[in-house]
Amino acid sequence: MPQKSEPQSIGLVSCQSAEFTEPLTLLSGQVLAPYHLVYETYGKLNASHSNAVLICHALNASHHVAGHYANDPGNTGWWDNMVGPGKPVDTNQFFVIGVNNLGSCFGSTGPASINPASGVPYGASFPVVTVEDWVNAQALLADRLGIQSFAAVMGGSLGGMQAMQWSIAYPERVKNAVIIASTPKLSAQNIAFNEVARRAIVNDPDFHGGNYYAKNTVPKLGLSIARMIGHITYLSDDDMAEKFGRQLRGSENYKFGFDVEFEIESYLRYQGEKFSTYFDANTYLLITRALDYFDPAKNDQGDLSKALSSITAKNLLVSFTTDWRFPPERSREIVEALLAQKKSVTYAEIDAPHGHDAFLMDDPRYHQLVASFFERIATEVQP
Amino acid sequence: MPQKSEPQSIGLVSCQSAEFTEPLTLLSGQVLAPYHLVYETYGKLNASHSNAVLICHALNASHHVAGHYANDPGNTGWWDNMVGPGKPVDTNQFFVIGVNNLGSCFGSTGPASINPASGVPYGASFPVVTVEDWVNAQALLADRLGIQSFAAVMGGSLGGMQAMQWSIAYPERVKNAVIIASTPKLSAQNIAFNEVARRAIVNDPDFHGGNYYAKNTVPKLGLSIARMIGHITYLSDDDMAEKFGRQLRGSENYKFGFDVEFEIESYLRYQGEKFSTYFDANTYLLITRALDYFDPAKNDQGDLSKALSSITAKNLLVSFTTDWRFPPERSREIVEALLAQKKSVTYAEIDAPHGHDAFLMDDPRYHQLVASFFERIATEVQP
Repeated sequence: MPQKSEPQSIGLVSCQSAEFTEPLTLLSGQVLAPYHLVYETYGKLNASHSNAVLICHALNASHHVAGHYANDPGNTGWWDNMVGPGKPVDTNQFFVIGVNNLGSCFGSTGPASINPASGVPYGASFPVVTVEDWVNAQALLADRLGIQSFAAVMGGSLGGMQAMQWSIAYPERVKNAVIIASTPKLSAQNIAFNEVARRAIVNDPDFHGGNYYAKNTVPKLGLSIARMIGHITYLSDDDMAEKFGRQLRGSENYKFGFDVEFEIESYLRYQGEKFSTYFDANTYLLITRALDYFDPAKNDQGDLSKALSSITAKNLLVSFTTDWRFPPERSREIVEALLAQKKSVTYAEIDAPHGHDAFLMDDPRYHQLVASFFERIATEVQP
Repeated sequence: MPQKSEPQSIGLVSCQSAEFTEPLTLLSGQVLAPYHLVYETYGKLNASHSNAVLICHALNASHHVAGHYANDPGNTGWWDNMVGPGKPVDTNQFFVIGVNNLGSCFGSTGPASINPASGVPYGASFPVVTVEDWVNAQALLADRLGIQSFAAVMGGSLGGMQAMQWSIAYPERVKNAVIIASTPKLSAQNIAFNEVARRAIVNDPDFHGGNYYAKNTVPKLGLSIARMIGHITYLSDDDMAEKFGRQLRGSENYKFGFDVEFEIESYLRYQGEKFSTYFDANTYLLITRALDYFDPAKNDQGDLSKALSSITAKNLLVSFTTDWRFPPERSREIVEALLAQKKSVTYAEIDAPHGHDAFLMDDPRYHQLVASFFERIATEVQP
């Protein structure tokens, strides 16, 4: 095995698009065709096509996992600290693929795409997509790229659900699954937060029943509320206390009004406003619904262990102590179900202050753990 | 001491109103006049006027603490399980007062009241009111009722803040303070939830900058979102899981859409919708802002112990293990600050599954504790 290089960014990257004309039958029974998936790749596929790693994205991310674009140098990939030369997922050793999911607003076919049947954007008529559907579409992309089997499928949060679904649906195609800050299914509280966010969007008069593209409007205020709610659940209470506390904005004294008074208000309003300028409201509905629906044990009367019985992947699970969106207990449910089936599992709970967002941070204990897992995988990859 | 009777409801009650013409100077420096406070009383004031207990209400409650009205028998007081003959706050022994706070929509002067200066409802011009202002107004009502000193001031959540503020602002007028499921100040996360709720209201086109009364509209959708957010924070994750889990509404199979799919969605929508039919949006803004602002240690550089140094009340604090809105740690901050000043404190953490809402439930351990505290108070009350 070559000596690991100093970590550096993958540098310039560009995205590609794969067109599919064969209809994709979704879990709902609806059919989508034609469609395309945008993706990026980093590193080189080896001769035996055995060193491919698929990175699955979460709610508000995309195929742009690492590096930056020539024409947009500030737009760094969302997991650039994880993927690159000498990084935990080392692109000197692995051929890494980031793929944008169906229903997204970042390039793959989604609600803002033109529906060829009508000549106008899908809008509200875009079919409900699920984690299962995303994984099936990703498998077709893998076929297209000549990848019979992934050295690893990896993701955090909703991305972790996709990694798990891969190892369930395509056991022979996943050698390792890396499932970070995830859950086997949403809790009632998780669904509740999603539902409030969706109501905020749907209630916005600029939503126009999802067909706002034709009206040249965007339900910005609703989308902004949705993002604010999401943001609260991504950060830990302690982290928010540390970062913002009760700090006032601009004055030591109360102004006794409803304008921004506390720093946390300013931060949330800013995050909401920013998000509403680039994210698509229909996509927000679709992806939160995909989160709600994911429940691989549903067809096994809630028996997760049974649902995982056919998998052959070796598994790495990581959770973070202050993550109250998908807390460690939820990862442990997966770990226990895997162990009950005598599957190979490595599990760590990282004592990190950053809540759910910790999976995006470069905590050295967390990154070292992932690096070690991938170093072992690298030794098992054929040239 | 007489034998305690079997607990029963106080039965028929009616509310009264006290008018005040003397201007009330608020913490903001603004002045409110004239104004009125509606209130209810239960039990009999004794000859020495020493058996009075003030019950302070939280966000969405009122002066209607116990019993029911002749013309509205289904409208039972919000703390009927706590206050009544033979109940923990025993109206055979105490003269109990429930008072509606300024800014409310349940009878006391608030944003929907006519501003005598303009002849139209205050709306957005109603001044920002604080816990301090409420307590000062309650003290004027106590004067009016001939009550120099309360045997106890009591409340849960925001009501607990008022009990604490009473013992700080009027140490000689509070013999005992009962502070349940409360906090010395909101955390950044608490403020964040309030802020999102407020944005949902303010963004509703039917809000009209707070002056919707003249437009004959109500920002129902925004208020409904606000209530849904609040509701999530009142229940524990476990309680929600227990009550709703991932139970589907009406079918065992997914419908793959955005209508109500899960029971928790139906529940939240119903709660939001119901709330929006009776609660005033401006009141929601005012009360959440009062919550944000409460911080008795602010003028003492955050030293809560110093802020509590002048109090003479004996204190009962209760928290609930699954309350993640105001968790036990927050009550312990108050307890520790009181102990540092060698004040009398009784404190209990009740292991209850119902989250923040537990303070409204009749958990027998909790109620027995309050009953014992009041039995001791009763022995100290002069006839």
